[in-house]
Parts: sequence; C-alpha cells; structure tokens
Amino acid sequence: MTSPDLALSIDSDRLVQRLDDLARVGAIEGTTGCARLALTDEDCAGRDLVTTWMHDLGLEVVIDGIGNVVATMPHPSGRSPVMTGSHIDTVATGGRYDGNLGVLAGLEVIETVLTAGIELHRPLAVGFFTDEEGSRFQPDMLGSLVYVGGLALEDALLIEDAAGAVVGDELDRIGYRGAAPLPAAAPHAFVELHIEQGPVLEDEDVTIGVVESVQGISWTEVTLTGRSCHAGTTPMRLRRDPGVVAAQIAAYVRELTGEIGGAQVGTVGSLTLTPNLVNVVPSAATLIVDLRNTDEATLQEAERRFREFVAQAAAREGVDVELRSVARFEPVAFDGGVIDLVEQCAGELQHTTRRLPSGAGHDAQMLARVCPTAMIFTKSVGGISHNVDEYTAPEDLAAGANVLLQTMLRLTTTEFDR
Amino acid sequence: MTSPDLALSIDSDRLVQRLDDLARVGAIEGTTGCARLALTDEDCAGRDLVTTWMHDLGLEVVIDGIGNVVATMPHPSGRSPVMTGSHIDTVATGGRYDGNLGVLAGLEVIETVLTAGIELHRPLAVGFFTDEEGSRFQPDMLGSLVYVGGLALEDALLIEDAAGAVVGDELDRIGYRGAAPLPAAAPHAFVELHIEQGPVLEDEDVTIGVVESVQGISWTEVTLTGRSCHAGTTPMRLRRDPGVVAAQIAAYVRELTGEIGGAQVGTVGSLTLTPNLVNVVPSAATLIVDLRNTDEATLQEAERRFREFVAQAAAREGVDVELRSVARFEPVAFDGGVIDLVEQCAGELQHTTRRLPSGAGHDAQMLARVCPTAMIFTKSVGGISHNVDEYTAPEDLAAGANVLLQTMLRLTTTEFDR
Repeated sequence: MTSPDLALSIDSDRLVQRLDDLARVGAIEGTTGCARLALTDEDCAGRDLVTTWMHDLGLEVVIDGIGNVVATMPHPSGRSPVMTGSHIDTVATGGRYDGNLGVLAGLEVIETVLTAGIELHRPLAVGFFTDEEGSRFQPDMLGSLVYVGGLALEDALLIEDAAGAVVGDELDRIGYRGAAPLPAAAPHAFVELHIEQGPVLEDEDVTIGVVESVQGISWTEVTLTGRSCHAGTTPMRLRRDPGVVAAQIAAYVRELTGEIGGAQVGTVGSLTLTPNLVNVVPSAATLIVDLRNTDEATLQEAERRFREFVAQAAAREGVDVELRSVARFEPVAFDGGVIDLVEQCAGELQHTTRRLPSGAGHDAQMLARVCPTAMIFTKSVGGISHNVDEYTAPEDLAAGANVLLQTMLRLTTTEFDR
Repeated sequence: MTSPDLALSIDSDRLVQRLDDLARVGAIEGTTGCARLALTDEDCAGRDLVTTWMHDLGLEVVIDGIGNVVATMPHPSGRSPVMTGSHIDTVATGGRYDGNLGVLAGLEVIETVLTAGIELHRPLAVGFFTDEEGSRFQPDMLGSLVYVGGLALEDALLIEDAAGAVVGDELDRIGYRGAAPLPAAAPHAFVELHIEQGPVLEDEDVTIGVVESVQGISWTEVTLTGRSCHAGTTPMRLRRDPGVVAAQIAAYVRELTGEIGGAQVGTVGSLTLTPNLVNVVPSAATLIVDLRNTDEATLQEAERRFREFVAQAAAREGVDVELRSVARFEPVAFDGGVIDLVEQCAGELQHTTRRLPSGAGHDAQMLARVCPTAMIFTKSVGGISHNVDEYTAPEDLAAGANVLLQTMLRLTTTEFDR
C-alpha cells in the first residue's frame, strides 16, 4: 500500500467521547480538568478504562515492569509495529488533553483501520507510558526512559515520591507491574500526537504543528548572598545588595534571548528575596534561570554568556554567588523522514502546517533514541496547559488524529522498510 | 550660665546598668534583644520601670491621653523645658538601644545635673512616646504625632492592631491613659539621642553624628499583570512577562540613585512573582520601591523619573501596571541653631563628628514641628538595628549622652531664649 486512502477518517465523536469518559476518572469538581497523578488509585482507574478499550478492539496488550501498557494489532508477520502513544497520568490540576489525546487518538487510529479492514504490511501499536509528568516521581518521562533503556528497571522501581512511597510498591499495589521485558524491542517508527501546550499555532492560525525537535533545557539556580541593612540609613556606596544583582540577572536573561535570537528562550519564573521586606536591603536572593534552545552549541553559548554576566554583576556589587545546575537536557532532533511525512500528510489533508520545536518534554523524545520518530501538535487555546482550563476544539483534535492516521499508515508501507 | 562645665559628665556605668535593667523586661531568651511591642504587658512593665526611675529622681511625671510619659525637673520659673526623649517600645525582635538609649540617657543627664546641684534658667525634661515603632499600631511615631497635634487624640485612640485590639482599650488595660492635655505645650527645644541604625559612623570611624535632617520617604507599590504561560513553549515575541518588567524596574532603581546622586537612596527589598515557578512565565509581579532623599524637590524628581521608567517598561512588554503610594513623608530639616550647638558641644568634648541625615524616622521629626530640634547619633555596630544583635559600645553610649548633656545645658541658657 503506497497510496493510502485519504478519505479514510477517524470518528471524531468517538474520540471526543473517549476523552470525556477518561476525563471523568479523577475529575476535578467544578472544572473540566482532572487529577490522575502517576500510580495513584485514579491513575489505576484510568489505566483500567483504557486497557479495557484496548482489549475490546482485540489488541494484544502487554504490560512491562515499569507499568507501560502497549497494545498491538494482531499481525501474522512478526514485523515490528509502527507505534504511537503518550501518557494518561496528569499533573495535580491537569487538563483532559495533555497525553490523553495521544493515547486515545492512537486507539482511534487503530479502530479506524480495523473497522475499514485494511491489510497492513506491519502492525500498528498504541501505548501509554508511566509517569510522564514527573509530578509524583522524578524524573519525568520515567516510563518511556526505562522503555528505551535509558534507566535500569531496578533503579526506577526504587524511586520514591515526596511521601516516601516507592514506584515498585505502587505498581504492585495498583496491579500494573507487568512481565514484558525491558528495555523493550524498538518499534519500527514512533509518532506522537500531542497538544502544543504553547500559543504558536493559535497565534498564527495554523492547524497542524510538525514537530522537528525538542528544545534542550538548562536550569541554573543562582544563590546570591550580600549584607542585609536598613534601606533608609545605608548609603548606596556601602551596600552589597543581592536583590539588585538578582534583578540585573533577570533583566539580562531577556536581553540575552534577543542577542542570541532564533529559537532561544529564557525565563526567570522563580525569584525570592530574603527577608523580602520593603525597608530592608535583602541578605540573600535566589532565582532559577531557564534557558532553552533547539541547538546544543547555541544553548552552550547562551549558558556561557549568562555565567559571565552573573560573575560580573556579582563582583560589581560585592555579593557572593553560587551556581547550581538543577536540570540539563540536550536538544533532541526528530527523524527527517518522519518529519517530512507528517508535513506531507497534513498538506494532503489540506491543513495549514508549521514546523516548530517542542518547548516541553515528551515521551517521543525517549523513543527517538531507538527508532525514527516525530510528533504532531494541535492547537492549545490560549497556550494553556497543565491547567484545568486546557482546551482544544473537536475539529483540531480530529485534524491531529487524521494526520496521525495517515502518517502511521504511510509508515507501515514497504517504502519505509529501511 | 553661658559657659557650662565641660568636666561635668554622666555616669556611664549607671547608664549601662539602666539599659541592662530595661532590656531584661521582655528579654528574648538566648539573645541580648527584647520584645516590647507597644501597649503590651511587656511595654507596660518597661513603662513602670522607667516611670519609677523618674519618680525616684523627684521629677514631675505626667501621662497624656495617648500614653506619652514626660518627666520634668521641678522648677520655680514656669519656663518651658528643654526636652529630650525617645521611645521604649521595640519591634518584635528588637535590640536594647533603639529608643531606650534616648530615654535613659535623658534620665542620666537629669540625674547628673541634679546631683551636681546646678541651677538652670529653665528646667530639663525627658519623655518617652507611645508606639514609635509602629510594629503594632500604624502609623509609627504615633505618640509624638499626637503630642504635637499632627493627629487628633480621638482618632488615635480608635486605631486597631492586626488582631483587632484598639489603642484606647489597650491604654486603659495597662493603665497608661493619662489626663495631661493634647496637643501638649511645646517645649523650648528638643534634642534626641539615638543609635544611628546605619553603618556610616562606624565605616568612617566617627564618634558623633550631627543629624541635620530626616530623609523624606516615598514607598510605591508596583503591581504588574501580564500573561502566564509555559517557559518552554512560548516564543519570546508572544510573552507579556511581568517578572521581566519587575526586574528591569528593580535594576533601574539602582541606576536612578546613581543618576540623582547625593543623598538619594533607592531600594527594592520586597519583590514577589506569581506563581513563582521555574518553568512558568509569571502572571503577576509585585514590588515595593523605596526612594528617600533629604531634599523634597529632588525626591520628587526621583519619583518622576521612576514613574516614567515604569510606564515605558510596562508598555514595552505589554503588561498592565498599577502604582499605589503606600507611604510618603516629606523630608524634615532640623533647626540650624540646635544642629550647630550639637556639633560645637561634640567638638569641645574632643569627639570626631559628621553631619548626616537620618535615614529612619524618629520622634524628633514630630517635635521639629513645634520647637527647635536636632538629633545626636552614636555608632551602630555593623549598622545593625531592629534586630537582637543591635550593639553600641559603652564608650559610644557615654559619648552620646555627654554630648546630649552639654547640648541640653547650653539650650537652657538665656543665650537661647529666643
């Protein structure tokens, strides 16, 4: 099959209905959002529901040792599947689309293909990965990380949440410690549909985001220590004010994004003065600087300039400075062939498209380590995510799912038997 | 008496002993500091102790309707007294010198004069004013404000603390609602001895600060409202980040003090981002900008430039801004004759001196409304005040008290009968 049927379409109502049904599990009263932190009772109930749907479609469902659940079309070939998937855990006050869309759209793609009776060269598979959000157990993307062999299962099982509960025990408790081996066999290819969680598609009125990469992330905690004193009685020349240096750094981060340009983003979302009193020059200031870029060399250049500025500003004021890297991930580039295919399918379906990087982390970036991978984004209204007000219109959900359908079908063909 | 005896000296040990005795009232265990918030049981016990000392010296003690206590030497002339004084209330974690020194040094001056049997042209008086700190009831300097007629007694009596306790009730409860009329009759002159609460005298190794003025204070709360979004997924061009603007303002306040120069100080001691999370562009930022100057016109110019910068920075980022004046006091200039006299007396006593403004508020600035007034500062080690670690060495306490003695004696002479 080299020219799949563009008229084949997922059932939009059924997709929205499943999103609604899943969102009722752990629903946050008075909102359209939900709370299903990884490996809680609510997560278990969500897993049970989705797994039931997988079984209802006659799929082969396997659960691995970290609780990832993968459902594959029965297929006589034994060929590796074209896989999609995402996660169904949420943050504490999450929306109903983040992750869930990717899983349920995958289910929808498979149901559509099965109903149409199309014979494929290789099977399709859909999975959901454990603890993608990282809200309960760190690191985030835990399940997919273990899936691709980035973290040993035995280490992952020992991770504790803030209350001291352990991953392995929680998997046993909810009945999702499976027997499928890890790392898992690599799929033939992987495509993940996800809401953008940002404002670009809405801002430019583009339907489909063709995700080329995931930004590299650099978080640096800056702790500045000076000399607390009275804001009225201390002449400027006798001050060693860590608050001023913190402000200068935060203002510089914005300048730096302009200097570097391109995909460079920089944010100071967290800044705390001590004691934070109007008439007291602070004794200390702490801020975390978030720098991201899709290009590792450019990200390193941004980090270098940032550190240079911090050292100069601190020295000028006579305050002590301590830098601590609190997160550092290199950028991930997706597969050129899969990216092109997503773009091509979306175009053939008459959707406007735009290539863009992902600013947030996704399971797909883990799968990219073991197979050709890309992602499809749909609009997030207002760029809102990790929030009960997260929203994507049904027509955008359907558009994304149909691009996923066409892309997956194309990836099953012999043309992609590389 | 036009040439008082420079050999006359206060009893340094007795002064330190009284400071120790008073500091035991409301002492904070494990520190040398104390807690005597205005009109609490601890404040009452401190008042009782100091009032006892006043009576022991045979002074005429009067308590007015806001609880100010003034002790005057018996004097046949009926002439208005040369007055000194300060306060004995403290902040919640206060030191033992702030305020207390001015009251107990005044008592020491009077005891020294009485013991020496010196006949004066006019009497000396020492007082302590209610709620100078403002830590329990706002505004600060409440007692001295009412004393000089700056606030009607009936209004002052209705002021509530954070727990709803009312000034009038609390005065009744601790037995310090007196009958002396308010506003009080103006003294002939007023001189207050106080610790500097700043680092200048120590930094320059000067013993006596000759206080010419009290800085004007301008506190402006700046509330910035933007659009919260994901720090990874939102391109810089789509941001409306109130945190960046807050940082730019705080950095500018420092620049502004350099531009204006002279006595201009500026501080951002309080700055809060909402929600203050590393990977979230803030939805809001609030900071309070503290500008002070001894010259009203210059302070107004600083305020003007500050407001202009805020408006421009907010507009550039597309964030909404709201400015609220949370405190505004004009500078107070002390009396040239009394300032000169303090400097002269300190010089005759072989002390190094330096003219300087007060960066903090003091009761003397209220008395300056009704009579010739100035202040004397002694060193604050490390500039530390409003803190249990507040410290001034005994020799500096004695130096300040002796300058107060000589200045008050000189002010009682016919030379100052203007």
